Amino acid sequence: MTPDELEAALRAIGAERYHSNHPFHKRMYGGQLTRGQIEAWALNRYYYQCNIPAKDATLIARLPTSDLRRAWRSRLVDHDGDGQQPGGIARWLKLTDSLGLDRDYVISTKGILPATRFAVEAYITFVRDQSILDAIASSLTEMFSPTIIAERVEGMLANYDFVSSDTLAYFTPRLTQAPNDAKFALNYCKEHARTREQQEGVLAALRFKCNVLWVQMDALWGAYVDGHIPPGAFVPSVP
Amino acid sequence: MTPDELEAALRAIGAERYHSNHPFHKRMYGGQLTRGQIEAWALNRYYYQCNIPAKDATLIARLPTSDLRRAWRSRLVDHDGDGQQPGGIARWLKLTDSLGLDRDYVISTKGILPATRFAVEAYITFVRDQSILDAIASSLTEMFSPTIIAERVEGMLANYDFVSSDTLAYFTPRLTQAPNDAKFALNYCKEHARTREQQEGVLAALRFKCNVLWVQMDALWGAYVDGHIPPGAFVPSVP
Repeated sequence: MTPDELEAALRAIGAERYHSNHPFHKRMYGGQLTRGQIEAWALNRYYYQCNIPAKDATLIARLPTSDLRRAWRSRLVDHDGDGQQPGGIARWLKLTDSLGLDRDYVISTKGILPATRFAVEAYITFVRDQSILDAIASSLTEMFSPTIIAERVEGMLANYDFVSSDTLAYFTPRLTQAPNDAKFALNYCKEHARTREQQEGVLAALRFKCNVLWVQMDALWGAYVDGHIPPGAFVPSVP
Repeated sequence: MTPDELEAALRAIGAERYHSNHPFHKRMYGGQLTRGQIEAWALNRYYYQCNIPAKDATLIARLPTSDLRRAWRSRLVDHDGDGQQPGGIARWLKLTDSLGLDRDYVISTKGILPATRFAVEAYITFVRDQSILDAIASSLTEMFSPTIIAERVEGMLANYDFVSSDTLAYFTPRLTQAPNDAKFALNYCKEHARTREQQEGVLAALRFKCNVLWVQMDALWGAYVDGHIPPGAFVPSVP
């Protein structure tokens, strides 16, 4: 494949497998979720958010040059903040606050679904153990995130009276951060995936990462739409 | 132990086991090393330097809060630079440059002693696998570094005509960075090492780290003072 053919193949994976296609997401922006279901989403998604710096630092630990590490370091700043502007994790906690979830309970991650935990930990393990090229490729779901964010924010504001633009402030900076990050990672992959084997690895890494996100949606659906909440997991106080 | 007794016990370990006590260091600042021996030191020490961001990012990946990760992140900046001011690794390469070592050869780390590699990798593994408290405690050798730096810089400038203050520019920022970092880590350990078991863990972590540094000095001594250079390792072109 040429680099542009590789990009097209990556975009085809996103079109098929990104979690914007998941029925839980469609219900969310369509206004068909209950408040309790949205609370469960926010609670579980916190575990993903708060582990992103661990994932990124795991990759930085493996990158061989100051240039690469410095480029990737901006992600730590985005998620952990700079001490003045809040980072993504702090902004996510504003979202869970505004939904009425107890902050200590959220941070404890006691109530999350086991599948959320397993999926997020698999992502960190992947980034630790696979090739650097594959680890970078696993971030490429960010190529598709502006669309899902736009759908989510617009749909949630239109459909849920307990959600305000302040609730969703997490997403605004992501609309510029994610495309910048995705561009860097995509260029890296297009430049470094030269052999067929490397290109297949990059495509497999993106499929893997789509699965990480998809599994989290599946788990929410099973527990909070189908109603099979596993022992110990969060039980919404409202339906 | 009270927190202050713990600090005193840590300082006692440094007084006994820090590599400022090693005969290779004493020869270095005493002017009794050959140029070849100093080249070997700079070459091997590069492997330690260039792995420090990997060590620090490994720890950041495990730290649970944005505050802690942000505090530790400054070490990445110190070693990798900010894109304008060179970091510690780039400054170390100026040192090896000025000693006439080929930069590509240095960066390849092909010529380092196996013991250097094993010691440095043990440090990263320790930080990955031990408790966060112990991982932080393993950085506490920085409590003792201003003294060794002062001895080294003064002794080397006085005794070797191939060493200038420009050669040793690596060390100047470290005189302020290391004490700041050490203060943060020491305070963390004094606050979090409450039980006897935790305190013993902290003391053991500092002993371990002193060993990491000491082993590197021992290896240099064996290869370049005693003259048992292992196969494939750097052979100085001058004595």
